[in-house]
Amino acid sequence: MLKFINQHRSIRNFSDRPIEHEILENILYAGTRASTTGNMQVYSIIVTSENKIKEQLWEAHFKQNMVKQAPIIITFCADFNRFIKWCQLNRAIPGYDNFLSFFTAAIDALLASQNVALAAETYSLGICYLGTTIYSAKKIIDILNIPKFVVPVASIVIGYPAESPDLTDRLPLNGILHFEKYIDYSAERINEIFLEKESSDLTAKLLIENNKETLAQIFTDNRYSKKDNVLFSQLFLKVIEEQGFMNNAE
Amino acid sequence: MLKFINQHRSIRNFSDRPIEHEILENILYAGTRASTTGNMQVYSIIVTSENKIKEQLWEAHFKQNMVKQAPIIITFCADFNRFIKWCQLNRAIPGYDNFLSFFTAAIDALLASQNVALAAETYSLGICYLGTTIYSAKKIIDILNIPKFVVPVASIVIGYPAESPDLTDRLPLNGILHFEKYIDYSAERINEIFLEKESSDLTAKLLIENNKETLAQIFTDNRYSKKDNVLFSQLFLKVIEEQGFMNNAE
Repeated sequence: MLKFINQHRSIRNFSDRPIEHEILENILYAGTRASTTGNMQVYSIIVTSENKIKEQLWEAHFKQNMVKQAPIIITFCADFNRFIKWCQLNRAIPGYDNFLSFFTAAIDALLASQNVALAAETYSLGICYLGTTIYSAKKIIDILNIPKFVVPVASIVIGYPAESPDLTDRLPLNGILHFEKYIDYSAERINEIFLEKESSDLTAKLLIENNKETLAQIFTDNRYSKKDNVLFSQLFLKVIEEQGFMNNAE
Repeated sequence: MLKFINQHRSIRNFSDRPIEHEILENILYAGTRASTTGNMQVYSIIVTSENKIKEQLWEAHFKQNMVKQAPIIITFCADFNRFIKWCQLNRAIPGYDNFLSFFTAAIDALLASQNVALAAETYSLGICYLGTTIYSAKKIIDILNIPKFVVPVASIVIGYPAESPDLTDRLPLNGILHFEKYIDYSAERINEIFLEKESSDLTAKLLIENNKETLAQIFTDNRYSKKDNVLFSQLFLKVIEEQGFMNNAE
């Protein structure tokens, strides 16, 4: 199993081979075995394969090719709708229209998503997470008819790989670990941790392509800019509120 | 690997056997192989084993026995501190003091945590997630010296099991799945989905113990009440703001 975990690569090119029904069911079942707060299972999993809907999702996900190309896109949602309806049918007064409940449900959805991703990889399927899910949450809600008390928090595309990329570089393990308590980073330590990433061939190539002095500038100026982050913060907070999760007073 | 995923049980009683250093390192490394937004790895992992600090964490985690008893507690944090410092050292102006960045980092931390949990289980270790992490985030920040731009979002206790609990019941798979789009739940459908859970021996026992009419009332009145959820919503939003993630305007 560790082999599967340690060999994960994001796959962005898929073959035409469809995913067998039984395999898909096993993968989704694996999602439900993840830990869930109080065994409430406050998440939902939406499996989309119809081309027309996938095309709409492709638009929402910044027109990334893999969304159209993959046979299936799976959207993981924080979902208190089902649980609230159950409470209401059972003479119980739900108090889940608040931020804590949203975040609890998001944790449930994300742990389930990682189980699904890993389970898929054990069947030689490839997956890629779509970070655009939280940027375009409102559009996804409209496309997938998502009701109140449900918020999409992660998506993966899934299919048989048509590529075999190298393992992605990671920071050295000790760069993200802290023992006993958090030890804050000195400038020297930061330089050490990022040294390998900064001196890679990939970075050299990116600096030329992007005409930047440092790798960090590619992140701040191009990939994850303040302007975009502020816009998407406002949009995502609005979605959380509109979906009913911001009644944080008695 | 599916076997490991599908046989997960939360373990709350641990033997005295310590976790071998090499095994711990392998488990933590597995965390770093999870998908991460833009390969930024905006999370940190804090591994705590000292009794004195564990005792403080035990207080923060509502005095759950397992926190004292487990040899190790691992705290997973959304962490933009390291990345922001790196930007500042590299003539790049970070724009990560907003809610979108917090949530992005939380996703990173949660996916890594699930890898660590599953990797631990392949070594016959047992784990249990602590939902109390987000309730007591401020206390955990103080105990573990967690700096600005870092927020704890999940913790697991980990050790060799001294118990062998049955698999926990789950809702039927089709109760949490939706195909193509979200199909909202009718009252009949809700009753179907929760039927098995409601009619279990465990539920019958809980109803008597808690003196309640319905299982749902045990959740709304005892386990996850509106009053608690509102309080913890306020506290957690305050933590997110204090840690620097609520500057959502240009």
